[in-house]
Amino acid sequence: MATQVTFEKATDTYLIRPNPADPRLTERVTGVDQTGAAVTTSVTVERALTIYLNRQEIVTAMTIGDYPDYLAIGYLLNQNMLRADDVVTGVDYDHDLAVAIVRTERETDYEDKLRKRTQTSGCAQGTAFGDLMELIDGVTLPAATLRTSWLYALTNKINTTPSLYLEAGAIHGCVLAEGDRPLVYMEDVGRHNAVDKIAGWMFQNRVSAHDKIFYTTGRLTSEMVIKTVRMGIPILVSRSGFTAWGVELARKAGLTLIGRARGKRFVALAGEDRIVFDQDLSYVEEESGKHRRKAAVHDD
Amino acid sequence: MATQVTFEKATDTYLIRPNPADPRLTERVTGVDQTGAAVTTSVTVERALTIYLNRQEIVTAMTIGDYPDYLAIGYLLNQNMLRADDVVTGVDYDHDLAVAIVRTERETDYEDKLRKRTQTSGCAQGTAFGDLMELIDGVTLPAATLRTSWLYALTNKINTTPSLYLEAGAIHGCVLAEGDRPLVYMEDVGRHNAVDKIAGWMFQNRVSAHDKIFYTTGRLTSEMVIKTVRMGIPILVSRSGFTAWGVELARKAGLTLIGRARGKRFVALAGEDRIVFDQDLSYVEEESGKHRRKAAVHDD
Repeated sequence: MATQVTFEKATDTYLIRPNPADPRLTERVTGVDQTGAAVTTSVTVERALTIYLNRQEIVTAMTIGDYPDYLAIGYLLNQNMLRADDVVTGVDYDHDLAVAIVRTERETDYEDKLRKRTQTSGCAQGTAFGDLMELIDGVTLPAATLRTSWLYALTNKINTTPSLYLEAGAIHGCVLAEGDRPLVYMEDVGRHNAVDKIAGWMFQNRVSAHDKIFYTTGRLTSEMVIKTVRMGIPILVSRSGFTAWGVELARKAGLTLIGRARGKRFVALAGEDRIVFDQDLSYVEEESGKHRRKAAVHDD
Repeated sequence: MATQVTFEKATDTYLIRPNPADPRLTERVTGVDQTGAAVTTSVTVERALTIYLNRQEIVTAMTIGDYPDYLAIGYLLNQNMLRADDVVTGVDYDHDLAVAIVRTERETDYEDKLRKRTQTSGCAQGTAFGDLMELIDGVTLPAATLRTSWLYALTNKINTTPSLYLEAGAIHGCVLAEGDRPLVYMEDVGRHNAVDKIAGWMFQNRVSAHDKIFYTTGRLTSEMVIKTVRMGIPILVSRSGFTAWGVELARKAGLTLIGRARGKRFVALAGEDRIVFDQDLSYVEEESGKHRRKAAVHDD
């Protein structure tokens, strides 16, 4: 017992981490397996949440339903319907009505944005970003460093953190980190929801972005790159792959873009100058079968 | 050589299959690997396609860009903006403008639908389905059989088909099959685009759905279940996991829902009565390291 406590103290830098034991986030269902035998298994909950900005209905998202306040605020921020200097006076959440209402001090100019909805790839036809493309034109991301020793420490910690995706699969994860320390780990059935929840958390807690690293289990698409740049985070890491446009936008914005980060391997396709190769690779293991299996559960 | 030709003749039942050698679908980009050494790698192309229905702009999707006609028609069908009895007089596609215009004989009632846009989980905040939920209320899926011997033959064929996802990763795949024969294999950066392209192909080629099996690499969310039910296909198989709502909707619609189909294993959580367990499992291999790695590349 003592050893375990020491271990957790030494490694647990999380301010927020998944709670796979939360009974609201998974359901037990019965079915049959490949032999025809009855089985009971856990599946991830997926529920609707309608987000309002003041009196205006904005969108209905499908989410696991934890942190509806962060999701609502982060969504509006990442859609440019909320500005960094907007004052959020409160978020009213009604679980039964499945509604989250973000209230701001001043009225906002989001209605124009609503007319510009486009769908993006995410993995679905994705979210509405309209003019978000233009918004990253003027962004200059800060100088920053990514030590490869941090990268391996981070991915090792993240992969061994108990999560819904180990419990029930079919879920995405995102982590906000500083150096080799994971700070906030959010999961959601919608990959972009997990990103938005972290954006909402950062906004509500006035957390600076310039010294942070963003980790995602999802692919490095145009939309993922745009969101990270909008959040002001200079480094984006994924265990998944790239799209060509994601790479192009990252280069344009000066974002460090690292993908296919599994075990010892990774590829950086933009902003390589921030990387300090300080890790002796002979001490890093290839991804184990256990982690490969986790990855495989976690497919889209 | 003779052996190879015989092999392909015996197993290739595809009417459409991926062409990973198509230079329009991947780009070569340079970067660095974990040692700091320069590397060149392939990444999947992602481009915008704006879909019009007659004079009305509907949506801009991010896609790899093959089969824009099938994508446009399938998207409109799966959004209920086109009906099964609508006559498509043509699809005008302009590569440089990135526009696909679906022209129909009669005007359609899609404008009401546009007002009901919601975002769904897919893995992003996803597509607009508004009242699609109601549409599956009245659907009765046909009687059908899924032999487990077909299932293993299918997944084995699909996993060994050359694909963009082997070439460049960061892409989803869907396959329309009949018995143990894959017929159409579509890939896209957007998982729902791959589904929509198959729906468009089925519509244009007047292919019946009642005896088909749908395979996806993506998760079994509410949206995936709704699309499959709308297409009239009675059996949906995925190598990924389930959401609780996906399971609930599948049970309600009488869809056979099989997930976590990897190597020897699978779990069926709805419509188990269609499954005939005719495969001797001692002849089925566990998923090999090679396929695990493929799965892992293909993460969201």
